[in-house]
Amino acid sequence: MVELSNQDSPQRHLLSVLVENKAGVLARVAGLFARRGFNIFSLAVAPTNDERFSRLTMVVDVESSPLSQIINQLDKLINVVEIFELSPAKAVQKELLLATIKTDAQNRGQVITHVGVFGGKVIDVGQDCLTVELVGEPESLDAFEQIISPFGIVNIQRTGTVALPKLS
Amino acid sequence: MVELSNQDSPQRHLLSVLVENKAGVLARVAGLFARRGFNIFSLAVAPTNDERFSRLTMVVDVESSPLSQIINQLDKLINVVEIFELSPAKAVQKELLLATIKTDAQNRGQVITHVGVFGGKVIDVGQDCLTVELVGEPESLDAFEQIISPFGIVNIQRTGTVALPKLS
Repeated sequence: MVELSNQDSPQRHLLSVLVENKAGVLARVAGLFARRGFNIFSLAVAPTNDERFSRLTMVVDVESSPLSQIINQLDKLINVVEIFELSPAKAVQKELLLATIKTDAQNRGQVITHVGVFGGKVIDVGQDCLTVELVGEPESLDAFEQIISPFGIVNIQRTGTVALPKLS
Repeated sequence: MVELSNQDSPQRHLLSVLVENKAGVLARVAGLFARRGFNIFSLAVAPTNDERFSRLTMVVDVESSPLSQIINQLDKLINVVEIFELSPAKAVQKELLLATIKTDAQNRGQVITHVGVFGGKVIDVGQDCLTVELVGEPESLDAFEQIISPFGIVNIQRTGTVALPKLS
């Protein structure tokens, strides 16, 4: 099944792909983009409630016309069950960020305040740093990263965007 | 840099990999596992605060001795900057789940109660379904999936585990 959205296309596209949960499938999908020199900006993949299948959400940087070619080729891979592009206007998009931030006695309160303002949570505390968790739209996570950068980011891991179709 | 944890090894391992943010890098990493027939259970990759690099967390199903071979080979890939295995006891592990769940007038309240109990949030509402967001340890998300399954899952997307080293 292929559904293509009619969105005006900026470079960045959001794809939702249902694949068989088997060794080699991710390599095949990623390889298709690699052979064309297209960068996968972010990707999240995990099994669905039916463990035979995994769903992946990818954010890719491509012009829209080669993207439709790639979608057609992905759709032909035997392990790809379903693929569709999600228009940002018609999707709920979320992302999870974990970050370990440097703090000292002086600025620790300030960091915790920032985390609270963004709706995040402190999930681990060390002598001179904190680890925080934050869920939000990708842009909100970008803004949070900018705010905490000056304190010093020891470690950061974002999941990449995941998205589902909007209900209305 | 390679750091190997000494954990007793169940089949499932958690790897944190810092890579160059370039086209083809993910395909190379995934290809290394595919060629050995090892399944990547989940994977999340996104740029770090330094856009030249991306960090990926992978959960892989392998025996521990071939894993150390793979880690060494990954470490030799030119685009891999750093790789280490995270022992579950020494890592904070989180995952994000989005799910669209079937509901009707009768059971909608019940679904919303379950979501609340797990600390989740309703983020979209349709005529006969709800989309919810939930962050937690992977086991907690598994439990939530079991609880909501009987209502009917229309769509589900999990990010896969992301993890950072514990601070103490």
